[in-house]
Amino acid sequence: MNEEIADPSHPRYQSLLMRERISEASLKGMLADSAMIAHGRGEAFDYLLGEQTIPSALEATKEVAARLVKAKKPVISLNGNAIALAGREFLTIASQLDCPIEINLFYRTPQRMGALLAHLKLLNANLELDVEILGGVPDARIPGLEGPRAACQQNGIFEADTILVPLEDGDRCEALVAMGKEVLVIDLNPLSRSSKRGTVAVVDEVSRVAKNLIQLIPEKPKITKWKNSNGLQSALDHITETMSNQFAL
Amino acid sequence: MNEEIADPSHPRYQSLLMRERISEASLKGMLADSAMIAHGRGEAFDYLLGEQTIPSALEATKEVAARLVKAKKPVISLNGNAIALAGREFLTIASQLDCPIEINLFYRTPQRMGALLAHLKLLNANLELDVEILGGVPDARIPGLEGPRAACQQNGIFEADTILVPLEDGDRCEALVAMGKEVLVIDLNPLSRSSKRGTVAVVDEVSRVAKNLIQLIPEKPKITKWKNSNGLQSALDHITETMSNQFAL
Repeated sequence: MNEEIADPSHPRYQSLLMRERISEASLKGMLADSAMIAHGRGEAFDYLLGEQTIPSALEATKEVAARLVKAKKPVISLNGNAIALAGREFLTIASQLDCPIEINLFYRTPQRMGALLAHLKLLNANLELDVEILGGVPDARIPGLEGPRAACQQNGIFEADTILVPLEDGDRCEALVAMGKEVLVIDLNPLSRSSKRGTVAVVDEVSRVAKNLIQLIPEKPKITKWKNSNGLQSALDHITETMSNQFAL
Repeated sequence: MNEEIADPSHPRYQSLLMRERISEASLKGMLADSAMIAHGRGEAFDYLLGEQTIPSALEATKEVAARLVKAKKPVISLNGNAIALAGREFLTIASQLDCPIEINLFYRTPQRMGALLAHLKLLNANLELDVEILGGVPDARIPGLEGPRAACQQNGIFEADTILVPLEDGDRCEALVAMGKEVLVIDLNPLSRSSKRGTVAVVDEVSRVAKNLIQLIPEKPKITKWKNSNGLQSALDHITETMSNQFAL
Protein backbone atom coordinates (compact mmCIF):
# COMPACT_ATOMS: atom_id res chain seq x y z
CA MET A 1 0.00 0.00 0.00
CA ASN A 2 1.02 3.56 -0.68
CA GLU A 3 2.77 5.03 2.39
CA GLU A 4 0.72 8.19 2.22
CA ILE A 5 -2.48 6.29 2.98
CA ALA A 6 -1.15 3.82 5.56
CA ASP A 7 -2.64 5.86 8.40
CA PRO A 8 -6.26 4.78 9.09
CA SER A 9 -6.87 8.04 10.97
CA HIS A 10 -6.49 10.01 7.70
CA PRO A 11 -9.94 11.48 7.03
CA ARG A 12 -9.95 10.09 3.50
CA TYR A 13 -8.33 6.74 4.40
CA GLN A 14 -11.18 4.54 3.16
CA SER A 15 -11.49 6.41 -0.12
CA LEU A 16 -7.75 6.25 -0.73
CA LEU A 17 -7.73 2.55 0.17
CA MET A 18 -10.42 1.86 -2.42
CA ARG A 19 -8.45 3.82 -5.01
CA GLU A 20 -5.42 1.68 -4.20
CA ARG A 21 -7.45 -1.51 -4.64
CA ILE A 22 -8.59 -0.35 -8.08
CA SER A 23 -5.02 0.50 -9.10
CA GLU A 24 -3.75 -2.89 -7.95
CA ALA A 25 -6.54 -4.75 -9.75
CA SER A 26 -5.78 -2.79 -12.90
CA LEU A 27 -2.13 -3.82 -12.74
CA LYS A 28 -3.25 -7.45 -12.33
CA GLY A 29 -5.28 -7.27 -15.59
CA MET A 30 -8.61 -7.54 -13.80
CA LEU A 31 -10.09 -4.31 -15.18
CA ALA A 32 -11.06 -2.73 -18.50
CA ASP A 33 -9.39 0.54 -19.52
CA SER A 34 -12.45 2.50 -18.56
CA ALA A 35 -12.61 1.02 -15.04
CA MET A 36 -10.39 3.67 -13.47
CA ILE A 37 -12.48 6.43 -15.04
CA ALA A 38 -15.66 4.79 -13.75
CA HIS A 39 -14.10 4.61 -10.30
CA GLY A 40 -13.31 8.32 -10.47
CA ARG A 41 -16.93 9.11 -11.29
CA GLY A 42 -17.92 7.12 -8.23
CA GLU A 43 -15.39 9.00 -6.10
CA ALA A 44 -16.95 12.31 -7.10
CA PHE A 45 -20.44 11.21 -6.07
CA ASP A 46 -19.12 9.72 -2.83
CA TYR A 47 -17.37 13.00 -2.11
CA LEU A 48 -20.70 14.79 -2.56
CA LEU A 49 -22.33 12.32 -0.14
CA GLY A 50 -19.60 13.05 2.42
CA GLU A 51 -18.05 9.56 2.00
CA GLN A 52 -20.59 8.12 4.40
CA THR A 53 -23.65 5.88 4.42
CA ILE A 54 -26.56 8.30 4.58
CA PRO A 55 -29.73 7.18 6.42
CA SER A 56 -31.75 6.53 3.25
CA ALA A 57 -28.93 4.35 1.91
CA LEU A 58 -28.94 2.28 5.09
CA GLU A 59 -32.71 1.82 4.73
CA ALA A 60 -32.24 0.71 1.13
CA THR A 61 -29.48 -1.69 2.20
CA LYS A 62 -31.84 -3.23 4.76
CA GLU A 63 -34.44 -3.66 2.01
CA VAL A 64 -31.84 -5.33 -0.22
CA ALA A 65 -30.93 -7.70 2.63
CA ALA A 66 -34.62 -8.54 3.14
CA ARG A 67 -35.15 -9.30 -0.55
CA LEU A 68 -31.99 -11.38 -0.84
CA VAL A 69 -33.02 -13.45 2.20
CA LYS A 70 -36.54 -13.96 0.83
CA ALA A 71 -35.42 -14.82 -2.73
CA LYS A 72 -35.85 -18.36 -4.02
CA LYS A 73 -32.88 -18.16 -6.36
CA PRO A 74 -30.66 -15.16 -5.68
CA VAL A 75 -27.42 -14.44 -7.54
CA ILE A 76 -24.71 -11.87 -6.94
CA SER A 77 -23.47 -10.46 -10.25
CA LEU A 78 -20.00 -8.92 -9.99
CA ASN A 79 -17.85 -6.99 -12.46
CA GLY A 80 -14.16 -6.17 -12.18
CA ASN A 81 -14.54 -3.04 -10.05
CA ALA A 82 -16.92 -4.72 -7.61
CA ILE A 83 -14.53 -7.65 -7.20
CA ALA A 84 -11.55 -5.31 -6.73
CA LEU A 85 -13.36 -3.17 -4.16
CA ALA A 86 -15.26 -5.78 -2.16
CA GLY A 87 -14.64 -9.28 -3.52
CA ARG A 88 -13.99 -10.64 -0.05
CA GLU A 89 -17.18 -9.17 1.37
CA PHE A 90 -19.34 -10.45 -1.51
CA LEU A 91 -17.98 -13.96 -1.00
CA THR A 92 -19.06 -13.73 2.63
CA ILE A 93 -22.52 -12.53 1.59
CA ALA A 94 -22.87 -15.33 -0.98
CA SER A 95 -21.94 -17.80 1.73
CA GLN A 96 -24.53 -16.32 4.13
CA LEU A 97 -27.19 -16.61 1.41
CA ASP A 98 -25.90 -19.92 0.05
CA CYS A 99 -26.05 -18.50 -3.47
CA PRO A 100 -23.58 -18.31 -6.37
CA ILE A 101 -21.56 -15.34 -7.56
CA GLU A 102 -21.54 -14.79 -11.31
CA ILE A 103 -18.79 -12.73 -12.89
CA ASN A 104 -20.48 -10.57 -15.45
CA LEU A 105 -18.28 -8.30 -17.57
CA PHE A 106 -19.36 -5.48 -19.83
CA TYR A 107 -16.06 -5.64 -21.74
CA ARG A 108 -15.50 -9.40 -21.62
CA THR A 109 -12.13 -10.80 -22.64
CA PRO A 110 -10.83 -14.29 -21.80
CA GLN A 111 -7.80 -12.72 -20.06
CA ARG A 112 -9.84 -10.48 -17.79
CA MET A 113 -12.34 -13.22 -17.00
CA GLY A 114 -9.44 -15.56 -16.16
CA ALA A 115 -7.79 -13.01 -13.86
CA LEU A 116 -11.07 -12.35 -12.02
CA LEU A 117 -11.95 -16.05 -11.65
CA ALA A 118 -8.48 -16.77 -10.28
CA HIS A 119 -8.70 -13.84 -7.86
CA LEU A 120 -12.13 -14.86 -6.48
CA LYS A 121 -11.18 -18.53 -6.21
CA LEU A 122 -8.07 -17.61 -4.24
CA LEU A 123 -10.13 -15.43 -1.88
CA ASN A 124 -12.66 -18.25 -1.57
CA ALA A 125 -9.91 -20.60 -0.45
CA ASN A 126 -8.30 -18.05 1.88
CA LEU A 127 -11.63 -17.42 3.59
CA GLU A 128 -12.27 -21.19 3.77
CA LEU A 129 -15.53 -20.70 1.91
CA ASP A 130 -17.04 -22.84 -0.80
CA VAL A 131 -18.98 -20.28 -2.82
CA GLU A 132 -19.84 -21.32 -6.37
CA ILE A 133 -18.24 -18.91 -8.87
CA LEU A 134 -20.02 -18.74 -12.24
CA GLY A 135 -19.39 -16.73 -15.39
CA GLY A 136 -16.47 -18.58 -16.93
CA VAL A 137 -18.57 -20.79 -19.23
CA PRO A 138 -21.61 -18.79 -20.35
CA ASP A 139 -24.40 -20.91 -21.84
CA ALA A 140 -27.30 -18.43 -21.98
CA ARG A 141 -27.95 -14.86 -23.10
CA ILE A 142 -29.75 -11.92 -21.51
CA PRO A 143 -32.46 -11.02 -24.06
CA GLY A 144 -32.26 -7.52 -25.54
CA LEU A 145 -28.50 -7.10 -25.28
CA GLU A 146 -26.00 -7.46 -28.10
CA GLY A 147 -22.51 -8.92 -28.13
CA PRO A 148 -20.46 -10.41 -25.31
CA ARG A 149 -22.21 -8.29 -22.68
CA ALA A 150 -25.31 -10.52 -23.03
CA ALA A 151 -23.43 -13.67 -22.01
CA CYS A 152 -24.54 -15.32 -18.78
CA GLN A 153 -25.04 -18.72 -17.18
CA GLN A 154 -28.32 -20.67 -17.18
CA ASN A 155 -27.98 -21.76 -13.54
CA GLY A 156 -26.85 -18.28 -12.50
CA ILE A 157 -28.14 -14.93 -13.76
CA PHE A 158 -30.49 -16.44 -16.35
CA GLU A 159 -32.65 -18.38 -13.87
CA ALA A 160 -32.25 -16.09 -10.84
CA ASP A 161 -35.39 -14.46 -9.45
CA THR A 162 -33.39 -11.82 -7.58
CA ILE A 163 -30.05 -10.38 -8.59
CA LEU A 164 -27.69 -8.08 -6.73
CA VAL A 165 -25.85 -5.88 -9.24
CA PRO A 166 -23.23 -3.53 -7.82
CA LEU A 167 -21.96 -0.93 -10.33
CA GLU A 168 -24.10 -2.26 -13.18
CA ASP A 169 -24.34 -0.78 -16.66
CA GLY A 170 -27.70 0.90 -17.36
CA ASP A 171 -28.52 -1.16 -20.46
CA ARG A 172 -27.91 -4.42 -18.67
CA CYS A 173 -29.84 -3.33 -15.61
CA GLU A 174 -32.84 -2.53 -17.82
CA ALA A 175 -32.54 -5.86 -19.62
CA LEU A 176 -32.56 -7.73 -16.30
CA VAL A 177 -35.61 -5.79 -15.12
CA ALA A 178 -37.29 -6.64 -18.44
CA MET A 179 -36.68 -10.33 -17.68
CA GLY A 180 -38.94 -9.87 -14.65
CA LYS A 181 -36.25 -10.18 -12.02
CA GLU A 182 -35.93 -8.21 -8.82
CA VAL A 183 -32.84 -6.11 -9.53
CA LEU A 184 -31.01 -4.80 -6.47
CA VAL A 185 -28.62 -2.03 -7.47
CA ILE A 186 -25.60 -0.52 -5.72
CA ASP A 187 -24.60 2.73 -7.43
CA LEU A 188 -23.17 6.04 -6.19
CA ASN A 189 -24.93 8.07 -8.88
CA PRO A 190 -28.57 8.59 -7.87
CA LEU A 191 -29.33 9.81 -11.41
CA SER A 192 -27.94 6.78 -13.28
CA ARG A 193 -30.26 4.56 -15.28
CA SER A 194 -29.33 1.63 -13.05
CA SER A 195 -30.34 3.58 -9.95
CA LYS A 196 -33.59 4.69 -11.55
CA ARG A 197 -34.59 1.36 -13.09
CA GLY A 198 -33.56 -1.00 -10.30
CA THR A 199 -36.18 -2.47 -7.94
CA VAL A 200 -34.16 -1.16 -4.99
CA ALA A 201 -31.11 1.08 -5.45
CA VAL A 202 -28.59 1.72 -2.70
CA VAL A 203 -26.80 5.03 -3.27
CA ASP A 204 -23.63 4.24 -1.38
CA GLU A 205 -20.05 3.08 -1.87
CA VAL A 206 -19.90 -0.62 -2.70
CA SER A 207 -17.56 -1.76 0.10
CA ARG A 208 -19.61 0.09 2.72
CA VAL A 209 -22.80 -1.51 1.40
CA ALA A 210 -21.22 -4.97 1.39
CA LYS A 211 -20.09 -4.57 5.01
CA ASN A 212 -23.57 -3.41 6.00
CA LEU A 213 -25.18 -6.36 4.22
CA ILE A 214 -22.98 -8.78 6.15
CA GLN A 215 -24.41 -7.28 9.36
CA LEU A 216 -28.02 -7.10 8.15
CA ILE A 217 -28.54 -10.46 6.41
CA PRO A 218 -28.37 -12.53 9.63
CA GLU A 219 -31.09 -10.29 11.12
CA LYS A 220 -33.45 -11.50 8.35
CA PRO A 221 -35.29 -8.19 7.97
CA LYS A 222 -38.80 -8.19 6.46
CA ILE A 223 -39.43 -6.71 3.03
CA THR A 224 -41.51 -3.55 2.75
CA LYS A 225 -43.51 -1.87 0.01
CA TRP A 226 -40.43 -0.11 -1.32
CA LYS A 227 -40.65 3.03 -3.44
CA ASN A 228 -37.26 3.33 -5.11
CA SER A 229 -37.61 6.97 -6.15
CA ASN A 230 -37.95 8.08 -2.52
CA GLY A 231 -34.50 6.74 -1.69
CA LEU A 232 -33.00 8.37 -4.76
CA GLN A 233 -34.54 11.76 -4.08
CA SER A 234 -33.30 11.54 -0.53
CA ALA A 235 -29.74 11.02 -1.79
CA LEU A 236 -30.11 13.99 -4.16
CA ASP A 237 -31.47 16.10 -1.33
CA HIS A 238 -28.46 15.21 0.81
CA ILE A 239 -26.12 16.35 -1.98
CA THR A 240 -28.01 19.57 -2.65
CA GLU A 241 -28.01 20.47 1.03
CA THR A 242 -24.21 20.20 1.01
CA MET A 243 -24.13 22.53 -1.98
CA SER A 244 -26.64 25.12 -0.91
CA ASN A 245 -25.24 28.40 0.33
CA GLN A 246 -21.65 27.16 0.50
CA PHE A 247 -20.53 30.64 -0.37
CA ALA A 248 -23.33 32.69 1.16
CA LEU A 249 -22.32 35.89 2.96
CA MET B 1 -10.82 6.31 -32.20
CA ASN B 2 -13.34 3.91 -30.76
CA GLU B 3 -16.03 3.10 -33.35
CA GLU B 4 -18.80 3.68 -30.85
CA ILE B 5 -17.92 7.36 -30.51
CA ALA B 6 -17.07 8.16 -34.13
CA ASP B 7 -20.45 9.83 -34.63
CA PRO B 8 -20.31 13.53 -33.65
CA SER B 9 -24.10 13.61 -33.40
CA HIS B 10 -23.99 11.26 -30.38
CA PRO B 11 -25.22 13.36 -27.43
CA ARG B 12 -22.16 12.44 -25.37
CA TYR B 13 -19.67 12.66 -28.28
CA GLN B 14 -17.47 15.34 -26.72
CA SER B 15 -17.33 13.61 -23.37
CA LEU B 16 -16.46 10.27 -24.99
CA LEU B 17 -13.84 11.96 -27.17
CA MET B 18 -12.17 13.42 -24.08
CA ARG B 19 -12.22 10.00 -22.44
CA GLU B 20 -10.54 8.57 -25.53
CA ARG B 21 -7.84 11.28 -25.40
CA ILE B 22 -7.10 10.41 -21.78
CA SER B 23 -6.88 6.68 -22.57
CA GLU B 24 -4.52 7.33 -25.50
CA ALA B 25 -2.30 9.62 -23.42
CA SER B 26 -2.18 6.99 -20.69
CA LEU B 27 -0.99 4.38 -23.21
CA LYS B 28 1.72 6.81 -24.36
CA GLY B 29 3.07 7.12 -20.81
CA MET B 30 1.99 10.74 -20.44
CA LEU B 31 -0.13 10.23 -17.32
CA ALA B 32 0.21 9.13 -13.70
CA ASP B 33 -1.79 6.11 -12.51
CA SER B 34 -4.27 8.36 -10.77
CA ALA B 35 -4.95 10.46 -13.89
CA MET B 36 -7.76 8.26 -15.17
CA ILE B 37 -9.45 8.37 -11.77
CA ALA B 38 -9.11 12.15 -11.69
CA HIS B 39 -10.64 12.30 -15.16
CA GLY B 40 -13.57 10.22 -13.96
CA ARG B 41 -14.17 12.63 -11.09
CA GLY B 42 -14.27 15.43 -13.62
CA GLU B 43 -16.70 13.48 -15.80
CA ALA B 44 -19.11 13.17 -12.88
CA PHE B 45 -19.11 16.91 -12.23
CA ASP B 46 -19.46 17.67 -15.93
CA TYR B 47 -22.41 15.28 -16.09
CA LEU B 48 -24.02 17.25 -13.24
CA LEU B 49 -23.43 20.49 -15.15
CA GLY B 50 -25.11 18.98 -18.22
CA GLU B 51 -21.79 18.79 -20.15
CA GLN B 52 -22.14 22.42 -21.17
CA THR B 53 -20.61 25.82 -20.45
CA ILE B 54 -23.03 27.43 -18.03
CA PRO B 55 -23.42 31.24 -18.14
CA SER B 56 -21.40 31.89 -14.98
CA ALA B 57 -18.55 29.77 -16.39
CA LEU B 58 -18.52 31.83 -19.58
CA GLU B 59 -18.36 35.01 -17.48
CA ALA B 60 -15.44 33.56 -15.51
CA THR B 61 -13.70 32.56 -18.75
CA LYS B 62 -14.03 36.13 -20.01
CA GLU B 63 -12.49 37.37 -16.75
CA VAL B 64 -9.62 34.89 -17.17
CA ALA B 65 -9.06 36.13 -20.72
CA ALA B 66 -9.02 39.74 -19.46
CA ARG B 67 -6.47 38.98 -16.75
CA LEU B 68 -4.23 36.98 -19.06
CA VAL B 69 -4.23 39.81 -21.61
CA LYS B 70 -3.45 42.42 -18.92
CA ALA B 71 -0.72 40.35 -17.22
CA LYS B 72 2.90 41.49 -17.47
CA LYS B 73 4.32 37.96 -17.25
CA PRO B 74 1.67 35.29 -17.73
CA VAL B 75 2.42 31.56 -17.78
CA ILE B 76 0.22 28.59 -18.64
CA SER B 77 0.95 25.70 -16.28
CA LEU B 78 -0.11 22.32 -17.70
CA ASN B 79 -0.18 18.83 -16.26
CA GLY B 80 -0.63 15.53 -18.12
CA ASN B 81 -4.42 15.58 -18.21
CA ALA B 82 -4.59 19.18 -19.42
CA ILE B 83 -2.09 18.41 -22.19
CA ALA B 84 -3.98 15.26 -23.19
CA LEU B 85 -7.34 17.02 -23.26
CA ALA B 86 -6.42 20.39 -24.78
CA GLY B 87 -2.69 20.60 -25.52
CA ARG B 88 -3.34 21.95 -29.00
CA GLU B 89 -5.67 24.67 -27.74
CA PHE B 90 -3.30 25.78 -24.97
CA LEU B 91 -0.48 26.12 -27.48
CA THR B 92 -2.73 28.42 -29.51
CA ILE B 93 -3.56 30.45 -26.39
CA ALA B 94 0.13 30.73 -25.43
CA SER B 95 0.85 31.95 -28.94
CA GLN B 96 -1.96 34.55 -28.73
CA LEU B 97 -0.55 35.79 -25.41
CA ASP B 98 3.10 35.37 -26.44
CA CYS B 99 3.76 33.55 -23.17
CA PRO B 100 5.42 30.23 -22.27
CA ILE B 101 3.79 26.97 -21.27
CA GLU B 102 5.34 25.24 -18.27
CA ILE B 103 4.75 21.53 -17.76
CA ASN B 104 4.15 21.12 -14.07
CA LEU B 105 3.60 17.60 -12.76
CA PHE B 106 2.35 16.55 -9.37
CA TYR B 107 3.86 13.08 -9.79
CA ARG B 108 7.00 14.03 -11.70
CA THR B 109 9.08 11.31 -13.31
CA PRO B 110 11.68 11.84 -16.05
CA GLN B 111 9.77 9.42 -18.32
CA ARG B 112 6.45 11.21 -18.01
CA MET B 113 8.06 14.65 -18.37
CA GLY B 114 9.86 13.42 -21.48
CA ALA B 115 6.70 12.04 -23.04
CA LEU B 116 4.80 15.28 -22.38
CA LEU B 117 7.61 17.52 -23.67
CA ALA B 118 7.85 15.44 -26.83
CA HIS B 119 4.08 15.54 -27.33
CA LEU B 120 3.83 19.34 -26.92
CA LYS B 121 6.86 20.00 -29.12
CA LEU B 122 5.37 17.85 -31.88
CA LEU B 123 2.06 19.73 -31.63
CA ASN B 124 3.99 23.02 -31.65
CA ALA B 125 5.66 22.03 -34.92
CA ASN B 126 2.43 20.68 -36.45
CA LEU B 127 0.64 23.95 -35.68
CA GLU B 128 3.65 25.92 -36.99
CA LEU B 129 3.87 27.73 -33.68
CA ASP B 130 6.95 28.66 -31.71
CA VAL B 131 5.67 28.52 -28.14
CA GLU B 132 8.36 28.20 -25.46
CA ILE B 133 7.84 24.96 -23.50
CA LEU B 134 9.32 25.03 -19.99
CA GLY B 135 9.39 22.51 -17.17
CA GLY B 136 12.09 20.11 -18.35
CA VAL B 137 14.92 21.75 -16.43
CA PRO B 138 13.53 23.10 -13.15
CA ASP B 139 15.81 25.62 -11.42
CA ALA B 140 13.50 27.07 -8.75
CA ARG B 141 11.03 25.86 -6.14
CA ILE B 142 7.52 26.93 -5.17
CA PRO B 143 7.84 27.86 -1.46
CA GLY B 144 5.73 25.81 0.95
CA LEU B 145 5.65 22.60 -1.07
CA GLU B 146 7.75 19.51 -0.47
CA GLY B 147 9.38 17.12 -2.91
CA PRO B 148 9.32 17.07 -6.71
CA ARG B 149 5.94 18.80 -6.85
CA ALA B 150 7.64 22.08 -5.83
CA ALA B 151 9.94 22.08 -8.87
CA CYS B 152 9.46 24.93 -11.35
CA GLN B 153 11.41 27.24 -13.63
CA GLN B 154 12.67 30.68 -12.67
CA ASN B 155 11.68 32.28 -15.98
CA GLY B 156 8.33 30.48 -15.95
CA ILE B 157 6.07 29.83 -12.98
CA PHE B 158 8.46 31.30 -10.42
CA GLU B 159 8.54 34.82 -11.90
CA ALA B 160 5.04 34.88 -13.41
CA ASP B 161 2.61 37.48 -12.12
CA THR B 162 -0.41 35.59 -13.51
CA ILE B 163 -0.72 31.86 -13.96
CA LEU B 164 -3.38 29.79 -15.67
CA VAL B 165 -3.70 26.42 -13.90
CA PRO B 166 -6.15 23.92 -15.39
CA LEU B 167 -6.85 20.89 -13.16
CA GLU B 168 -4.42 22.03 -10.45
CA ASP B 169 -3.83 20.28 -7.14
CA GLY B 170 -5.22 22.20 -4.15
CA ASP B 171 -1.91 22.39 -2.26
CA ARG B 172 -0.08 23.80 -5.21
CA CYS B 173 -2.84 26.25 -6.00
CA GLU B 174 -2.65 27.57 -2.45
CA ALA B 175 1.14 27.82 -2.61
CA LEU B 176 0.92 29.86 -5.83
CA VAL B 177 -1.67 32.18 -4.27
CA ALA B 178 0.65 32.58 -1.26
CA MET B 179 3.40 33.71 -3.65
CA GLY B 180 1.16 36.68 -4.49
CA LYS B 181 0.29 35.59 -8.01
CA GLU B 182 -3.04 35.89 -9.76
CA VAL B 183 -4.09 32.25 -10.03
CA LEU B 184 -6.63 31.48 -12.76
CA VAL B 185 -8.16 28.04 -12.17
CA ILE B 186 -10.04 25.66 -14.48
CA ASP B 187 -11.74 22.95 -12.42
CA LEU B 188 -15.02 21.05 -12.77
CA ASN B 189 -15.46 20.68 -9.02
CA PRO B 190 -16.83 23.95 -7.60
CA LEU B 191 -16.03 22.71 -4.07
CA SER B 192 -12.35 21.89 -4.65
CA ARG B 193 -9.67 23.85 -2.84
CA SER B 194 -8.32 25.05 -6.17
CA SER B 195 -11.72 26.43 -7.14
CA LYS B 196 -12.13 28.10 -3.76
CA ARG B 197 -8.63 29.54 -3.44
CA GLY B 198 -8.04 30.68 -7.02
CA THR B 199 -8.35 34.35 -7.96
CA VAL B 200 -10.81 33.38 -10.70
CA ALA B 201 -12.11 29.81 -11.06
CA VAL B 202 -13.85 28.58 -14.21
CA VAL B 203 -16.13 25.63 -13.39
CA ASP B 204 -16.14 24.02 -16.81
CA GLU B 205 -14.51 21.27 -18.84
CA VAL B 206 -10.96 22.15 -19.82
CA SER B 207 -11.25 21.75 -23.60
CA ARG B 208 -14.44 23.86 -23.70
CA VAL B 209 -12.71 26.57 -21.65
CA ALA B 210 -9.64 26.51 -23.88
CA LYS B 211 -11.78 26.88 -27.02
CA ASN B 212 -13.68 29.78 -25.43
CA LEU B 213 -10.41 31.48 -24.42
CA ILE B 214 -9.18 31.31 -28.03
CA GLN B 215 -12.31 33.28 -29.04
CA LEU B 216 -12.20 35.73 -26.13
CA ILE B 217 -8.52 36.68 -25.91
CA PRO B 218 -8.47 38.62 -29.24
CA GLU B 219 -11.44 40.67 -27.98
CA LYS B 220 -9.19 41.96 -25.16
CA PRO B 221 -11.97 42.15 -22.54
CA LYS B 222 -11.54 44.48 -19.55
CA ILE B 223 -10.99 43.07 -16.07
CA THR B 224 -13.72 43.55 -13.48
CA LYS B 225 -13.88 43.52 -9.69
CA TRP B 226 -14.30 39.74 -9.65
CA LYS B 227 -15.86 37.91 -6.69
CA ASN B 228 -14.85 34.29 -7.15
CA SER B 229 -17.37 32.83 -4.70
CA ASN B 230 -20.28 34.18 -6.78
CA GLY B 231 -19.25 32.10 -9.77
CA LEU B 232 -18.79 29.01 -7.64
CA GLN B 233 -22.16 29.34 -5.93
CA SER B 234 -23.74 29.82 -9.32
CA ALA B 235 -22.24 26.49 -10.50
CA LEU B 236 -23.51 24.78 -7.34
CA ASP B 237 -26.94 26.30 -7.86
CA HIS B 238 -27.02 24.96 -11.41
CA ILE B 239 -26.24 21.45 -10.14
CA THR B 240 -28.77 21.59 -7.32
CA GLU B 241 -31.48 22.75 -9.71
CA THR B 242 -30.84 19.65 -11.81
CA MET B 243 -31.18 17.52 -8.70
CA SER B 244 -34.21 19.11 -7.11
CA ASN B 245 -37.45 17.22 -7.46
CA GLN B 246 -36.11 14.74 -10.00
CA PHE B 247 -38.46 12.17 -8.55
CA ALA B 248 -41.29 14.41 -7.39
CA LEU B 249 -44.82 13.11 -8.00
